[in-house]
Amino acid sequence: MPLSLNAIEEARERIGDRVVRTPFSRAANLSTLIGCRIHLKLENQQVTGSFKERGALNRLLTLTEAERARGVVAASAGNHAQGLAYHATRLGVPATIVMPMRTPLVKVTRTKRYGARVVLHGANYDEAEAAAHELCAADGAVFVHAFDDEVIAAGQGTIGLEILEQNPQLDTLVIPIGGGGLIAGIATAIKETNPRIKIIGVEASACPSMRHSVDAGKVTMPPALHTIADGIAVRRVSPMTLDIVQRYVDDIVQVEEEEIASAILQLIEEEKVVAEGAAATGLAALAYGRIAPERAGRVGLIICGGNIDINLIAQIIERGLVQAGRRIRLVLTVPDEPGSLARLTALVAELRANVLQIHHDRAFHTPLGQTEVELTLETRGNDHVEELLERLRASGYSSVEQER
Amino acid sequence: MPLSLNAIEEARERIGDRVVRTPFSRAANLSTLIGCRIHLKLENQQVTGSFKERGALNRLLTLTEAERARGVVAASAGNHAQGLAYHATRLGVPATIVMPMRTPLVKVTRTKRYGARVVLHGANYDEAEAAAHELCAADGAVFVHAFDDEVIAAGQGTIGLEILEQNPQLDTLVIPIGGGGLIAGIATAIKETNPRIKIIGVEASACPSMRHSVDAGKVTMPPALHTIADGIAVRRVSPMTLDIVQRYVDDIVQVEEEEIASAILQLIEEEKVVAEGAAATGLAALAYGRIAPERAGRVGLIICGGNIDINLIAQIIERGLVQAGRRIRLVLTVPDEPGSLARLTALVAELRANVLQIHHDRAFHTPLGQTEVELTLETRGNDHVEELLERLRASGYSSVEQER
Repeated sequence: MPLSLNAIEEARERIGDRVVRTPFSRAANLSTLIGCRIHLKLENQQVTGSFKERGALNRLLTLTEAERARGVVAASAGNHAQGLAYHATRLGVPATIVMPMRTPLVKVTRTKRYGARVVLHGANYDEAEAAAHELCAADGAVFVHAFDDEVIAAGQGTIGLEILEQNPQLDTLVIPIGGGGLIAGIATAIKETNPRIKIIGVEASACPSMRHSVDAGKVTMPPALHTIADGIAVRRVSPMTLDIVQRYVDDIVQVEEEEIASAILQLIEEEKVVAEGAAATGLAALAYGRIAPERAGRVGLIICGGNIDINLIAQIIERGLVQAGRRIRLVLTVPDEPGSLARLTALVAELRANVLQIHHDRAFHTPLGQTEVELTLETRGNDHVEELLERLRASGYSSVEQER
Repeated sequence: MPLSLNAIEEARERIGDRVVRTPFSRAANLSTLIGCRIHLKLENQQVTGSFKERGALNRLLTLTEAERARGVVAASAGNHAQGLAYHATRLGVPATIVMPMRTPLVKVTRTKRYGARVVLHGANYDEAEAAAHELCAADGAVFVHAFDDEVIAAGQGTIGLEILEQNPQLDTLVIPIGGGGLIAGIATAIKETNPRIKIIGVEASACPSMRHSVDAGKVTMPPALHTIADGIAVRRVSPMTLDIVQRYVDDIVQVEEEEIASAILQLIEEEKVVAEGAAATGLAALAYGRIAPERAGRVGLIICGGNIDINLIAQIIERGLVQAGRRIRLVLTVPDEPGSLARLTALVAELRANVLQIHHDRAFHTPLGQTEVELTLETRGNDHVEELLERLRASGYSSVEQER
C-alpha cells in the first residue's frame, strides 16, 4: 500500500493503544535559552525506548495468519530489533533477529529479553542482512526491513497525526534522518494535512546519505564516518524514502559530532530528557544555528529514541562539557624550578577555575630547563575559557595550548 | 492553616495550571525486572526540575498584597531556591535567595536565570538561613521555609491528589524524606482519601533524620554523612512534619549510597528518566529489597526532581556500573618477566571482559621479582565478575583483589 495520509490513519487505527501516545511536551528552559518555542515529541518513552515500535507493529498487524505462524526475521543491532521483538512476542509471532557478531552485549540481552531469538552473524550490517534473507528463504518467514517498507513508514507516520492534535499551531518540525522511514511517514502525515508546517530533516554530517541522494537525484552512498548518532548512521537510503523526502521535505541540514554531544547534554540538564545521539540532532541544529531559531517559530523536535549506551553517556557528558567550555585540558611548559607549579596553580585559582586533574612531567618531550604541565580544569563557559587563556599568556605562559 | 485534605484541595485550586500536571507513567521495563507494577510520578518535568514549585507557589499565592510588595526571602542552595525564584518572578514578587558561599556556580546561575537576587553568605546552610532572617527583619520581607510550613506542605500534597486520579488502584506509594514537607503533604492527601494505600518513606542511610526522630518521639539530629541524595540531606526535620509522619506513614526504610547510584543508572537505562539522587531512593528501596516488591503490588515512586549535577552524572554512572558488576578494577601481581602481561591479558580476553584501562607498575610497592598490574574491565554483571575472579585465582593469580 503506497504511503499516504490515509495509510497512516489506518495504521493508527490498527495500532490503537498498543504503543504509548507519547507527550509532545513544552521545553520551557530550552525555549528561553534558544529563543523559540520548542516542544519535544518524547518517543524515548516507548517501552523499548524508540519510535521503531510503531512501524514494526503496523507491519506485524498486516501479516496474514499464515505469515504470522511462520514468523518474522530482521537484521538490526538497534532499535528496530527491540521494537519488532517486543511486539512480535506480545502478538505471539516468532521473531528472529540477526545481529552482526560484534554487537554490544547489552543490545543482544535486551532483544532477547523482549522475547526474540537472536542470531549473531557477519562482520557488519550487510552480512547480517544477507543471513536474514537466507533464513527467510529457508523457512518462509517474513523479512521486516527497518525503513524500506511503506507499511513501516506509515506506522512511523502516526507520530505526525499525534503532533497535529497535540499542537495544531506548530510552524516547524525537525526530524532526524537515517534510512528515511521516520521522516517519510511524518512528512506525509503533516504535509497532506497542513502543508504550511515546515519539515526540516537533520543528518549527522558524518553520514549525510539523504543529502547526497537528494543532490544526486538518486540513491547514492556517501563516504561515512563514525557518529555518536548511531541510530541514523545509515549509508543507503531507499528510493521510496528519497522520493517522499524530495516531495515533502523543505530542507535538510547537517550537524557535527560535538554539536550532537552538546545537545545530549542540554537535553539532560535543561529538560531531564535522556536522548540518544540521533534524537539530539534536531536540538543541535537549532542550538548551533543550522536552523535559525527566530524563523523556526513554534518548533517541534522528534526525540526519536533514548537508547544511548550507558558506557558512552559519561564520555559524551565530558565531550559536551568541553564543547560548552565547561571543561578544558591545557598543556603548557613552566620553568623547571622550585615554586613554578605553585605560581601556576595560584593563578588558576585566582581565575576561579577548578583543577580536576594535574599531570606534571619533568622527564619527557620538553626542552632542558622547562617542564610540561597538563591541567584539566572545570570552567564556566567559553567566555571564561577565553579569559583564562588570555590571562595565562599575559602572565608569561606563552606555550599554553588547549587540547580538544 | 493546619495541613489537611481540605487545605490541599484549596492549594490545588489556587495553583491551577501554573505548575505542570506531571505524568504518572508506567515503568514497563522496571516492572518486569523488579516484579511489581511500578508507576513513576515525574516531578522532574516541572520547569525548574522539581516538585518544590508546588509548595513555593502555594505560599506565594497566599501572601497579602502588602507582603507581595515587600517580597520573599529564602535560604537554599537547591530546588526550593529555583522553584521559589521562578514563580515569584512570574507573579512579580521580588525574591532574594541566600546561598552558602561555596554553592556550585550552576545553582547560582540557574536561580538568577529564574529572576531572583542571589546573596552568597555563610559557610553552611545554617549561616545562610540566619542571614536570610536578618534580611527579613531589616526590610519586612517574608521568609519562606523549604518544608517547615503547612502552606508549603499543602502545595506538595497536590501531587497526592493527582496520583489518586491518575491511578486509583494504587497499593503502595514510596516517598523520599528530607525535611518531610513532601511526604507530609502527599501522605495527608492520600490517607485522608484512601487509607488503604500504604505510604512508605525513604531516607538515605547517610542522613536518617526522620527515622531517628520517629524513634526518639521528637525532633533529633542524627550524625550525618555526605550523600549523593543531596536533595534530602536535611539533618533536622520539623515538629510539624514529624507529627504527620507519625500519624500517616506506615514505614520508613533506608538505602545506601551504592544502591542510590545503581537506581539512578537503572532509571536512565530502563526508563530514560533523569533523576537526582533523592528521586532515585524509592527505586533503590524496591530494587534492593528494603521494600518487598511482591508485597508492594501496584507501587508509585515519586521522582521528586531531576537536578543532578552534570559533573556528577558521569561519576555516578561509573559507580553504578561498578555496583552492578559491569565495571571492575582489579589489582594483582604478576611475575616480572617477559610475556607475563601478555598471558594475563590473553586470559582476560578469553573470559570476554573488555579492558578499559591497564596500569603496569614495575617500580613501586611490589616484592622483588613481582610487578603490580591494575586492570579496569568492562564486565557483564556480578556473575561474570565472580567467574572472572575464580578463573584468575585458579590460573595462579592468587593475589587478585577487587578495588571498590
